[in-house]
Amino acid sequence: MSEADGDEGAGAGGISLGSSSDSAPKTVEGKSLSTLSAIASGPGWTKVSCSCCMSERVEPLILVKLSEKVRPETKRWLIKLIGTSQKEGGAGLLAHPGEDATGDIIVVSAPRCTLLRATEELGLCKSYNSGDMEAFSYIDRDNFKDSDNMDVFLTLAERQFIVKYELDGLRAQRDLRVPGLSDKNAFQNRDNIWQKLGSAGVIVDTVPLHHPQQLKELSKAWYSGNQLSQPLDSVNTYFGSSIAFYFSFLDFYTWSLLPPALLGLCITYYSADVQKEMVESVSGSQTEDVDEDAGPTVSGHMVQAMFSMLWSTVFMEMWKRRSSTLSYHWGTLHLAERFAEPRPGFHGDLGVNPVTGRVEPLFSEWQRDLRMALVSIPVVGLFLGLVVLGMFGFYWGEALVQQVHSDWDSVLTQTLLYTPSILHIVYTNMLATVYRTVAKFLTEFENHREESAFEKHLTAKVLVFTFFNYFAVLFHIAFFKQDVPLLRKRLASLLIVTQLINQVTEVVIPFLVDRFISAPHRAESEDDPEEDKLRRQSTLPVFPGLFAEYIELLVQFGYLSLFSCVYPLTAVLLLINNLTEIRSDAYKICKLFRKPLYPPVANMGVWQTAFEVLSFVSVVSNCWLLLLSPRLQTTCQEAGMSSTSILMSAVLVEHVLILIKVILSVLIPDEPEWIRKKREHIDYMSMEALKQQKLQPEKS
Amino acid sequence: MSEADGDEGAGAGGISLGSSSDSAPKTVEGKSLSTLSAIASGPGWTKVSCSCCMSERVEPLILVKLSEKVRPETKRWLIKLIGTSQKEGGAGLLAHPGEDATGDIIVVSAPRCTLLRATEELGLCKSYNSGDMEAFSYIDRDNFKDSDNMDVFLTLAERQFIVKYELDGLRAQRDLRVPGLSDKNAFQNRDNIWQKLGSAGVIVDTVPLHHPQQLKELSKAWYSGNQLSQPLDSVNTYFGSSIAFYFSFLDFYTWSLLPPALLGLCITYYSADVQKEMVESVSGSQTEDVDEDAGPTVSGHMVQAMFSMLWSTVFMEMWKRRSSTLSYHWGTLHLAERFAEPRPGFHGDLGVNPVTGRVEPLFSEWQRDLRMALVSIPVVGLFLGLVVLGMFGFYWGEALVQQVHSDWDSVLTQTLLYTPSILHIVYTNMLATVYRTVAKFLTEFENHREESAFEKHLTAKVLVFTFFNYFAVLFHIAFFKQDVPLLRKRLASLLIVTQLINQVTEVVIPFLVDRFISAPHRAESEDDPEEDKLRRQSTLPVFPGLFAEYIELLVQFGYLSLFSCVYPLTAVLLLINNLTEIRSDAYKICKLFRKPLYPPVANMGVWQTAFEVLSFVSVVSNCWLLLLSPRLQTTCQEAGMSSTSILMSAVLVEHVLILIKVILSVLIPDEPEWIRKKREHIDYMSMEALKQQKLQPEKS
Repeated sequence: MSEADGDEGAGAGGISLGSSSDSAPKTVEGKSLSTLSAIASGPGWTKVSCSCCMSERVEPLILVKLSEKVRPETKRWLIKLIGTSQKEGGAGLLAHPGEDATGDIIVVSAPRCTLLRATEELGLCKSYNSGDMEAFSYIDRDNFKDSDNMDVFLTLAERQFIVKYELDGLRAQRDLRVPGLSDKNAFQNRDNIWQKLGSAGVIVDTVPLHHPQQLKELSKAWYSGNQLSQPLDSVNTYFGSSIAFYFSFLDFYTWSLLPPALLGLCITYYSADVQKEMVESVSGSQTEDVDEDAGPTVSGHMVQAMFSMLWSTVFMEMWKRRSSTLSYHWGTLHLAERFAEPRPGFHGDLGVNPVTGRVEPLFSEWQRDLRMALVSIPVVGLFLGLVVLGMFGFYWGEALVQQVHSDWDSVLTQTLLYTPSILHIVYTNMLATVYRTVAKFLTEFENHREESAFEKHLTAKVLVFTFFNYFAVLFHIAFFKQDVPLLRKRLASLLIVTQLINQVTEVVIPFLVDRFISAPHRAESEDDPEEDKLRRQSTLPVFPGLFAEYIELLVQFGYLSLFSCVYPLTAVLLLINNLTEIRSDAYKICKLFRKPLYPPVANMGVWQTAFEVLSFVSVVSNCWLLLLSPRLQTTCQEAGMSSTSILMSAVLVEHVLILIKVILSVLIPDEPEWIRKKREHIDYMSMEALKQQKLQPEKS
Repeated sequence: MSEADGDEGAGAGGISLGSSSDSAPKTVEGKSLSTLSAIASGPGWTKVSCSCCMSERVEPLILVKLSEKVRPETKRWLIKLIGTSQKEGGAGLLAHPGEDATGDIIVVSAPRCTLLRATEELGLCKSYNSGDMEAFSYIDRDNFKDSDNMDVFLTLAERQFIVKYELDGLRAQRDLRVPGLSDKNAFQNRDNIWQKLGSAGVIVDTVPLHHPQQLKELSKAWYSGNQLSQPLDSVNTYFGSSIAFYFSFLDFYTWSLLPPALLGLCITYYSADVQKEMVESVSGSQTEDVDEDAGPTVSGHMVQAMFSMLWSTVFMEMWKRRSSTLSYHWGTLHLAERFAEPRPGFHGDLGVNPVTGRVEPLFSEWQRDLRMALVSIPVVGLFLGLVVLGMFGFYWGEALVQQVHSDWDSVLTQTLLYTPSILHIVYTNMLATVYRTVAKFLTEFENHREESAFEKHLTAKVLVFTFFNYFAVLFHIAFFKQDVPLLRKRLASLLIVTQLINQVTEVVIPFLVDRFISAPHRAESEDDPEEDKLRRQSTLPVFPGLFAEYIELLVQFGYLSLFSCVYPLTAVLLLINNLTEIRSDAYKICKLFRKPLYPPVANMGVWQTAFEVLSFVSVVSNCWLLLLSPRLQTTCQEAGMSSTSILMSAVLVEHVLILIKVILSVLIPDEPEWIRKKREHIDYMSMEALKQQKLQPEKS
C-alpha cells in the first residue's frame, strides 16, 4: 500500500497546495501565490535551499493554527523562520501561508534533506541495499532503498513527527524581538521558540494532518470488514510505532487469552462446584452449601490458578520476542534519543553536554533525584493514603447506614443505603482527576531531559495510583476480609459492568457527539477549498492518548492473573470484550479524533514492566486465594493436616512457583536469535565506522 | 609506576634479548645472533614489516615452549609464521629463537602496529588527548595519549594478552603441510594453527613472562609492608583486569564486613542469650536452659538477621558502582568481544557471520540449546542427585553406627563412629573432582563462540554443584531437621576449620613445596644466560585459576547472609580471615605460580549474579531461621499468637523484605552518574563516526 502513497495522495486526497519547482501553477490554490511574493518566491511554499530537495509536489504534513489576533508581520516572520535553513537557525522546513497571508493557519511540510538528516538524528533504521535494516546514515544515503522517494522511504507518521520535532527544536540563536509582539515576549538566546510562542498565545495548536485516501484504505482493512487480523504494518505507517505497538499488544494479548478461556470453559462445564459459584456470583444469592464428597480432590480452581500463574510469564516473554521483531521491522531498534536535543519543556543552566559536547541546558541528576525524593514521592504517598482513607470511609459509611437502616427501616433509609457507594465513586473520580493534574505537574517539575524519561515517570506515577485505586478494594476483600464469595461477586460485577461502561464512554458517546453535535458544523462538500478541509481537521477533539487504553488492558490483566482462580470465566469475558475493543479502538482513532502524533518507540516502555510486575504479584495473590478456598481447607483437614502445615505448603508452593517463573523468564530469550544477530550487526557496523575514521576532537 | 616501565625494564630486569634496529649488539646475548641469520636478518628478532614499529629494545612477552623432539625446520617455520604480517596470514609478531636455533623455546614479542590494531579489535578504551577515555581507534591513534610508547600505552598484561590472542587466532590460509611434521598433522583451510600444533605435541606450553623489576615493586606495595590498601591499579597493570577485579572485590567485601562485624560484636557483648549459645557452640555441650524473662523482646538474632538481609543488597549495589568505575579506569567499559574472532576451541561449518560479514565457523544457537537441554542439564541434575544421595547415605550410616555403637560399645565401634564422616568426605571430594572434569567436557561440547560465554557456562555449572555441595547439609539441618543448635555448631566448625584448612592448602603447602622441593632445582645466579632465567619461569606450577578463590568468597558470603543470624560472630571471623587472605592470595599469585594470563573483562561476570542470587535466598533462609528461634516462639506464644499467625507474620515479613530489597536494587543506580555519562559519550562517539562516514557495503 505504501508504494502507492505518493501518487495517490495528490489525486485522491487532493491535497496539493502547490509545488515548489513548478513555475506554472495548475491547481486552484494558485491564487494564494501572489500575496506571498514578499516572503517566498516559490508558488505558495517557501523556497528550498538545495537542489536535491526540489520536487513536483509538496505534501502538507502539519497544520499550525495561529491565534486570530496574530498580526501579519508575525505570521510572515514565523513562515520565514520555518523556511530558513537549519544552519541559519531556522527549522529547514517548507511553509505555506494558506489561502491568504493574513489567515490564521500555516501549513508545513519538509524537504528531502531535512527529513533525511532528522532520520539519522533520530537513529531510525531503514532498508539497506543488502536487504538488511541499518541505522540510517545521511552520507551513505544512496545505499538505502528508496531514499530518493520520501513518501516510500519514511512513513507518514515519521514525516509528520520529524516536522513536529524540528518545530519543537527551534531555539533562538540570539536575543531577538518578534515583529508584531510586545517586548515582554522577546526571546533570549537559546530560548525554545515554539514553546514560548505557544505560551504567548501566538500558536494555538500544531495539528498533524490526515491523509484521506490512506485513512480510507486503512479503515477498510482494519475494522470495516470481518477480518480477524489487524493491518499492523499499515497502522505503523499511518499512526506511528507508539499506536502500532498498542494495537499489536492488544492483538497478541487477545489471542493469548484463548488458552485460559478454553480452560475456564472446561472447568465451568465439568466442575459442579464452580457452576454453583457462578450462579451465586451472578444471582447474588447464597445457595445452600451441599457437601459433595464425590468430587475430585484437585479442584478446578487450583488447576486454573497454576495455569494462569505460568501462562502470564510465558505470555509476557513471548510478547517481548514479538515486540523486538516488530521493532526491527519498523526500524526503531536503534533509536538514539539520549543523544538527541532535550525535550522542549526541559530547562537548566546552559553548559556543555558531556556526552555529545553540544551547548544546551543542563540539569544535574542529583537535583532531579532530590526533587523526586523530597516532593514527588511524598505527594504520591499522600494520594495513596487518600485512596485508602476513602476506602475506609466507605466501609465506615456502609456500616453506619446499615445500622441506621436496620434501626429505622423506612424508604428514606432505603435510599440512604446507596449514599456511601455514590459518595465513594464521586470521591474516587475526583481524586483521580486531581491526581492526574498533580502527576503531570510533578513530572514537569522533575525536569526530565528526554521525552521518553518524562513519559516513563509520568506513567509510573499514574500507574501506581490507578493500580491502587482499582485493586485496593479487591485486595482488601481477599487479604483482610478473607471473603471469597464477596470477592467473586465483586469481580464478576467489575468485569461485566466496567467493560460495558468503558465501551460506552469511550466509543458510543464520542460517536454520538461527533455525529449529532460536531458533524453538522463541519458539513463537507467536494468543492470546498483545500484549506478549509485542512482547517476542519483541527476542530476534531484531541486524541486522549493511549494511557487510558493501556490502563484498561492492565486492569483486565490484573483481574485475570490476580483473581481469576475465583472466577474461571474471567478469560472468556475478557476475550469477548477485547474482540470488540480492537474494532472500537480502531474506529475511534481513525474517525473520532484528530490524528495523534507520537515519537517512534522501540517497545511498550514502562507498560511492559507493569505487566511483568503484575504477573509476579499474581503468584502471591493466587496462592493466598487457593489457601482460602473452602474446598482445599476441607480436603486438607480430612487428610489430617494442621492449619500450620497447610499454610506451610502454600508458602512452599508459592516459592517454587516464583522460582519457576524466574527461571522461565531467564530461559526464554527476550528477542529471537535472528533479531539478536541483526541488532548486533547494526552495532557492529557503527563500531566499524568508528575504526575507519579519524575523529575531530569535539571538545575544542 | 607505569611511567618508568620502559626504561627500568631493560636495566634492572635485564631482559633485552636484542634490538631490531640496533646493528651493534651490546648485550651478552649477542652471541645468538649469528645462528639466526637464516631465519631473520635482524639481530635475533624477526624483522618488523613497517618502519613505525622499529624500536631500540624489544621486550620478551611470551615464552613458547616446544617439545624437545621438534625438528629445527618446524621451529624455523613456526618463527617465520609468527613473524609474517597478518595480511599474509601470519601473526604479525616478533619471534626470537632463544640461545640457539635448535633449542626448545621461542620468545615472542609484539611490534607497535600489531599491538595498536589488536587494542582496537578488543575494544579497549584509552586516554584521549581531551583527558577522557575513548574507544581506541587505530586511524585516530595520534590523538591518544602515549600511543607512541607501548610500555606506557598498554599495560604489561594487555601486551601479553594481545600476543596470546594473536597466536591463538592464527588460522591456516589454505591447506598446508608443516615442515618436519607427518602428513596426518597437515592443516586444512581455516584450521586453528596454535590449537592443532598443541594437540600434535609441537607446542607444549605458552607462558607469559614475569617482569622481575615490576614484580618486585608490586609485591613491595602489595603484601610486604603493613599497608591497609591494595595497589589495585598496579595489579591491573601487571596481572590484568580479571585478577584485579578479584582483588578489588575481595578488598571491597572485606571492608564491607566491618558494619556486620561490629554489630555482631555488640550483640554478643550485650545479649546474654547469644553469649550462652556461643559457648555452647564452641564447647559443644548443652548448658542448662535458664528462662530469663528480663531480656528485651527483640532478640539480637532478629536485629542481626534484618541487618544482614538489607546489608547484602546495599553491598552488592555499591560494588556494582565501584566495579563500573574500575572498569572505566581500566579501559574495559566498551569491550567488543562478540565481534571478535571466535575462541580457539570453537568449531562449526564455515559460513558468513551475519553480524560481522566475515567467513568463520558457524554453529547455530538452537543446536547449542538442544545440547544444553538434552545433555548438560540432565548430567548436572544427575550429579546434584548424587550429592543428595551421599548426604542421605551419610545420615543412614551415621544412624547405623550409632546403633551398633550403643549395642556393642567397644573400641572398635568407637572408631567405627568416624567412618561415615570420612566416607562422606572422600565421596564428596571424589564427586567434586569428577564433576569438574565433566563440567569442562560438557561446556566444550556446548561449543560456545566467545571465551566469556564458555567461562560463564562453565562457572555456572560448577557453581550450582559447589553451592549444593556446601549448603545442602546446612539447609537440610535448618529446614528439615529444624535443629538450630546443631546448625550453629556446624556453622562455627565450618567457619573456623574450613578457613584454616583453606589457608594451609592454598598457601603453606605450595610455599613449602616451592621452598624445599622446587627451589633447589632452580638456584639462580646473576650471570645465568637470560634464556635460562626465562625458561625457569616455565617450570613453576600453573596458576590454578580464580575459580577456587571466588568459590571461597561465595561460600563465606553464603554463611554470612544465609545463616549469620544463628551465629552473630560470623562477620568477625570472616573479617579476620579475609585480612590475611588478601596477603596470602597476593603472595601466592606473585611468587608461587607462573604469571597467569586472562582476557580483559568489564566486571566479575557470572560471579556477580551468584552473589546477588545468594543475597535474595538469604531473605527466605533468615526468615525461616528466625521463625525457628525458640526465643521468638515463646515471646509470641506469651503474646497469645497462634502458631499459624506467627507463621503468617513471618511470611509477611519475608515478602516485605524481598520487596524492600527489590526496590533498593532498583533505586541505587548500577553505575555512578559520571560513569554513565562517560559511557554514553563513548557510545555517542561511535554513533557519530557512523554518521560521518560512507560505509563500504560488506556483503558484496
